[in-house]
Amino acid sequence: MKQRLINSNKIIIVFALLLWAFSNESNAQAESPNLVLTFEAVKEIQASIGSVPLFDKSLESAKSFVENALKNPIEVPVPADAGGGYTHEKHKQNYNEMYQAGILFQITGEEKYGIFIKNMLDQYAELYPTLSAHPQGKRQTPGRLFWQTLNENVWLLHTIQAYDCIQEWLSPKDRQNYIDNIFTPMVKFFMIDCSQSFNLIHNHGTWMVASVGMTGYVLGNQDYVQKALYGSDLDGKSGYLAQLDELFSPSGYYTEGGYYVRYALWPFFIFAEAIHNNEIDLKIYEYRDQILRKALYSALQVTYTNGAFIPINDAIKEKTWLSRELIFATNFVFAHYNQDAELLNLVKLQDEVSLTGPGLEVAKALDDISEIPAFTWKSIEFTDGPKGDWGGVGIIRSGDNSDQETLVMKYGSHGLSHGHFDKLTYLFYDQSREIIQDYGSARFLNVEQKFGGRYLDENDSFAKQTVAHNTVVVDEKSQFDGIRDKSQESHSIRYAFSAQDEQFQFMSAKEKNAYKGVKMHRTMAMVNDEKLYRPVIIDVFRIESDQKHTYDLPFYYKGHFIYSNFEYEAFTKTKSVIGEDSGYQHLWKEAIGKPDKTAQLTWWNGKRFYSIVSNTSTGNEIYFARIGGSDPDFNLRNEPVFIIRARADNYVFASVLEPHGIFDPIAEFTKDSYSSFENVQVILNAEDYTIINLKGKNNIDWNLMISNEDNNPESEHKITFNNVVYEWKGTVGIKK
Amino acid sequence: MKQRLINSNKIIIVFALLLWAFSNESNAQAESPNLVLTFEAVKEIQASIGSVPLFDKSLESAKSFVENALKNPIEVPVPADAGGGYTHEKHKQNYNEMYQAGILFQITGEEKYGIFIKNMLDQYAELYPTLSAHPQGKRQTPGRLFWQTLNENVWLLHTIQAYDCIQEWLSPKDRQNYIDNIFTPMVKFFMIDCSQSFNLIHNHGTWMVASVGMTGYVLGNQDYVQKALYGSDLDGKSGYLAQLDELFSPSGYYTEGGYYVRYALWPFFIFAEAIHNNEIDLKIYEYRDQILRKALYSALQVTYTNGAFIPINDAIKEKTWLSRELIFATNFVFAHYNQDAELLNLVKLQDEVSLTGPGLEVAKALDDISEIPAFTWKSIEFTDGPKGDWGGVGIIRSGDNSDQETLVMKYGSHGLSHGHFDKLTYLFYDQSREIIQDYGSARFLNVEQKFGGRYLDENDSFAKQTVAHNTVVVDEKSQFDGIRDKSQESHSIRYAFSAQDEQFQFMSAKEKNAYKGVKMHRTMAMVNDEKLYRPVIIDVFRIESDQKHTYDLPFYYKGHFIYSNFEYEAFTKTKSVIGEDSGYQHLWKEAIGKPDKTAQLTWWNGKRFYSIVSNTSTGNEIYFARIGGSDPDFNLRNEPVFIIRARADNYVFASVLEPHGIFDPIAEFTKDSYSSFENVQVILNAEDYTIINLKGKNNIDWNLMISNEDNNPESEHKITFNNVVYEWKGTVGIKK
Repeated sequence: MKQRLINSNKIIIVFALLLWAFSNESNAQAESPNLVLTFEAVKEIQASIGSVPLFDKSLESAKSFVENALKNPIEVPVPADAGGGYTHEKHKQNYNEMYQAGILFQITGEEKYGIFIKNMLDQYAELYPTLSAHPQGKRQTPGRLFWQTLNENVWLLHTIQAYDCIQEWLSPKDRQNYIDNIFTPMVKFFMIDCSQSFNLIHNHGTWMVASVGMTGYVLGNQDYVQKALYGSDLDGKSGYLAQLDELFSPSGYYTEGGYYVRYALWPFFIFAEAIHNNEIDLKIYEYRDQILRKALYSALQVTYTNGAFIPINDAIKEKTWLSRELIFATNFVFAHYNQDAELLNLVKLQDEVSLTGPGLEVAKALDDISEIPAFTWKSIEFTDGPKGDWGGVGIIRSGDNSDQETLVMKYGSHGLSHGHFDKLTYLFYDQSREIIQDYGSARFLNVEQKFGGRYLDENDSFAKQTVAHNTVVVDEKSQFDGIRDKSQESHSIRYAFSAQDEQFQFMSAKEKNAYKGVKMHRTMAMVNDEKLYRPVIIDVFRIESDQKHTYDLPFYYKGHFIYSNFEYEAFTKTKSVIGEDSGYQHLWKEAIGKPDKTAQLTWWNGKRFYSIVSNTSTGNEIYFARIGGSDPDFNLRNEPVFIIRARADNYVFASVLEPHGIFDPIAEFTKDSYSSFENVQVILNAEDYTIINLKGKNNIDWNLMISNEDNNPESEHKITFNNVVYEWKGTVGIKK
Repeated sequence: MKQRLINSNKIIIVFALLLWAFSNESNAQAESPNLVLTFEAVKEIQASIGSVPLFDKSLESAKSFVENALKNPIEVPVPADAGGGYTHEKHKQNYNEMYQAGILFQITGEEKYGIFIKNMLDQYAELYPTLSAHPQGKRQTPGRLFWQTLNENVWLLHTIQAYDCIQEWLSPKDRQNYIDNIFTPMVKFFMIDCSQSFNLIHNHGTWMVASVGMTGYVLGNQDYVQKALYGSDLDGKSGYLAQLDELFSPSGYYTEGGYYVRYALWPFFIFAEAIHNNEIDLKIYEYRDQILRKALYSALQVTYTNGAFIPINDAIKEKTWLSRELIFATNFVFAHYNQDAELLNLVKLQDEVSLTGPGLEVAKALDDISEIPAFTWKSIEFTDGPKGDWGGVGIIRSGDNSDQETLVMKYGSHGLSHGHFDKLTYLFYDQSREIIQDYGSARFLNVEQKFGGRYLDENDSFAKQTVAHNTVVVDEKSQFDGIRDKSQESHSIRYAFSAQDEQFQFMSAKEKNAYKGVKMHRTMAMVNDEKLYRPVIIDVFRIESDQKHTYDLPFYYKGHFIYSNFEYEAFTKTKSVIGEDSGYQHLWKEAIGKPDKTAQLTWWNGKRFYSIVSNTSTGNEIYFARIGGSDPDFNLRNEPVFIIRARADNYVFASVLEPHGIFDPIAEFTKDSYSSFENVQVILNAEDYTIINLKGKNNIDWNLMISNEDNNPESEHKITFNNVVYEWKGTVGIKK
């Protein structure tokens, strides 16, 4: 059963169904509960009560939550509101209450919890058949209980677990009532009415199939289970296993990026655990070379040391790896693989475990360990795409967890519906905070006043546009003309990634499809040197075209502007937006500078200064701009950006980003508030090679040399230009 | 000697001089060092090494600092730069190195430290006589080694301590060289050339007299000491004791506010300790009913629970009570008064003690204590002015230190040269952060690119102006026409302060001089109620005038705008500044709303929502504005403000500020993002009484009743208006 079923094979399907029928029969003997929480785990938990502090705490927290629910009248309102609104939040609260009450019913054996669930299900059984499309259902697939089906899937996923916990205690008549009036029509609604979502290779699809599959296990309905695993057509082209195949690259990278993987992992792991407990022969935790384990570790690596998910694509920046969605994944991976003690860092911070067998196991491990080894954030490249050939995401780090530099470059695929037009963009962190930011998404999660908590118009008109990212915009238009389907057709090309030498790490990628007739190639290196406070980033963005274009390279710096070494015209009494569309309409033009030599731009953030020093000359323009134009509802954060503009056919933006100096207002002490770098020049811009020279204080005189066509790390390069010999080995070299 | 000498009395002066002559003689026998570090303390410290962890750590830190200095060549550059520049920072580094080397010389007895100080002093003795006014000396009193004399005072205060530590070891010839070429000319420069500063009742004056007085003790020069204590004319009208008399109110409040007291306490305590060690009979720690103790506690109370000083007047917001300046004060107050264990919270956070006898004592206490009692931030009113009759500052708090609401209202005197035109302004904190902010000052401390680290032009043109504060601006002009001398002539009037009832705390104050012909009276209450998440603030700002004026009330909220319940016109493609002067030129006009009923304005910050709900109606305008106009150097922070505008003669701004709801993006949970308050009305606006009604969800229907003329807390009030009887006791009453 472990092999992929995408190329449908009727014999295998028939075999699978036979196997299912067999295993189902044997499982029919299994005592309930038997989804995520099992009968055996309940026994173990009962035996451990009072001896495992974190488990006890989590159990107490569930008790206090449900006790509070028991005090209040049950309310199952007619659905009316979108996200954040009263009825929306009430139905969310209801499934959480039932879910936790179910667990407590099992662990404590107290009937009051069962009665509570029964009373609530009675009301749902009355309400649900009366519902049609939700009145607030806009844009996305409307549900019945909720404005989007997604929430309704989550409702079922929790409620079926609650039902599983009390089903043996319920009367046959009640069981039949809930099956007939809730579960069957809801599953039918998902499988038939929402068949497109059901078969979608997307995190919304995962929620749907997980909820249906789990309902199948509980009701003994093999049709539900099989379709959940293999898709409506049972051909393995969709369903849970196809999602595991296609949404993750072989390295475990989730194609929608760090923010969404957190959410996606929840149903992936919940359903995995239910499969594990019902169909052990499927070896789900071994599936695709342990893709579930890789998926969790990949998710953890796409965080910064403060735990925040790197906010590429649509992302809410407040989300960290403490998100409750990861509790299950962490518990299950710890228990089903190698009990990795580093995961206990996360468990400790989460300060909560799942009320499951693995949750008990991880809580015991935390109690037993004397010192948890520090979590290792490392330089790592993730490939994108099911086969790992859709480009990727590179992450380069330096320094320990307390104050780590992290550089992220994105050169993968579009990332489905939540993707941005941001190929070759980068983000930079230092001091446990963002220094060069990605805007993330324009959304206030669950805030009713902000378009019901949904993605805002400005998410499309600004946050997704190329100019909202730290990558080159051509002719003030977004990549792929801002059309998702066009972007989804191709991907960037991984060119080089090297992190062996801590003093000189680099990555390099190309993009040839984002703009017609324009080839782009970005190389970024993190260079450490004893002459400097901290590692610096060298950034070489090479563009080739037959035609002249306007190239804009934005830097969304975080902090307060301190200094530029060139004159600029500032718009101090009135100001206007820069452009009319493609995101430019959201940028206020605050100043325009015309540098005549290498530009230095310095800002302050926290205890340091940061400078971008770039190879400008007469002819370049530098915009000082600020997000917030064309925003009548004040939906955008008013944050600053520098944009370096060039008018050219072939062009190289060569910059160094330097963290420097000390700003200590408490000790009233400031040092080195000027950049060490004074001169950045492109020595050679040719088809096969790019050479950059950087000069600065303390006799800094470095050459960065890039082989543009040959990325064999073993190749030796030697070129002579203007009577100087440049020699290096591998794709990118540095000579100091 | 304890009595005040402001009314000079020649007999007392003569007596003082006699006493001095006597005590000096006895001290002549005291072994050096004998300033802040004493000979006896050195013995005790030597005996304790290795047994008091925090003291050992502080000592090690000094060693590693000085060892590093010993490795490098001594450099005493010709002064060239302003704050943040190389020579400025170098001279600061030099005195720190000498100061710490002196202490190490005493404690370790190692000669290398003495040699280091000697070599450095040799260079200063050569350089100093060659210097005239500093080339960067602008605006403020220029020094010789530094651009302002202030830094030079600090240099002397440290260097004389270093000299004291090695003087017995030095040859008589070296001693004479330093006395003749450094100390005497420098003291002469301070006392004669800068006599105006020397006699100033101001923190700069304190640094100067402390450095001169300490030099006097070391050199046995009673002229220096007496003038430092009693002023140039020895009449007690200036000098250290007069500063203790006049810069602090009887409750210990420092007239320049929280930010500057931190800085001022440093020389106050350093000199106090030197006086204590040299003239025990002066009983300096008992002086003026223990004003030094009160000054420290007042400084600690004008912080928020995150340790940040409440940034009224010119203040850098990064400054917290961890500032090293407070280490001495904390150590000395702990040792010389009642060993208050709550102070150990601060000592623990400072993670450093002074290398003095009291430093050793406090480090021992920290080592001995098993559990430190939590520091108590309390609701408290500080009076302002030497006699406590110049108005004051009220602070009302609710909740424990982990998430405390704090409301601050300012109704004191101008606060000398760092004062702002901000009478009756307020600040509000919650969630360990600012919610309604005071801008603080426009300054980047020690950042050379930002006007040498000095106060920026925008500090005068914006930060000090009335419209930069949360108080009413009349006719778009600042209070007192923005003229400091006029503001300094008067002060606001305390009217009521009550914090006994935790459910209903309030304060009230009046201002009659800020605008000619306009009387202002603001009352603010913190009201707790079981119907609400958290205490709310009710804010009643009553204005009386014979003439029609434009009244603007700004609210500098921190967070992201979420919602208003009225239509507004937003300036989305181009925007302009609101006005031409008085700070309005720095405000971008982003939208204008015209409410026709009670206005609700909601924003989001952290895990909560906040709303201001205000008694607007047709005729009011509400500006949405943002700081940052007329700012070609990008010196200002671009932060938002709502301004409610009214055109009236007599008027009442009545508002409630409500923290409400829950925003939890990690748990994807949002609740109550709308304010509970829906209707705020002024029921009665009369000379003697103001009555406000507030209505909202859950049948909230409250009356807030203010007696405008009688502030006797025992008075009973009963009035009938529109057939309703209103009855309460005391200045402000609430009826729910």
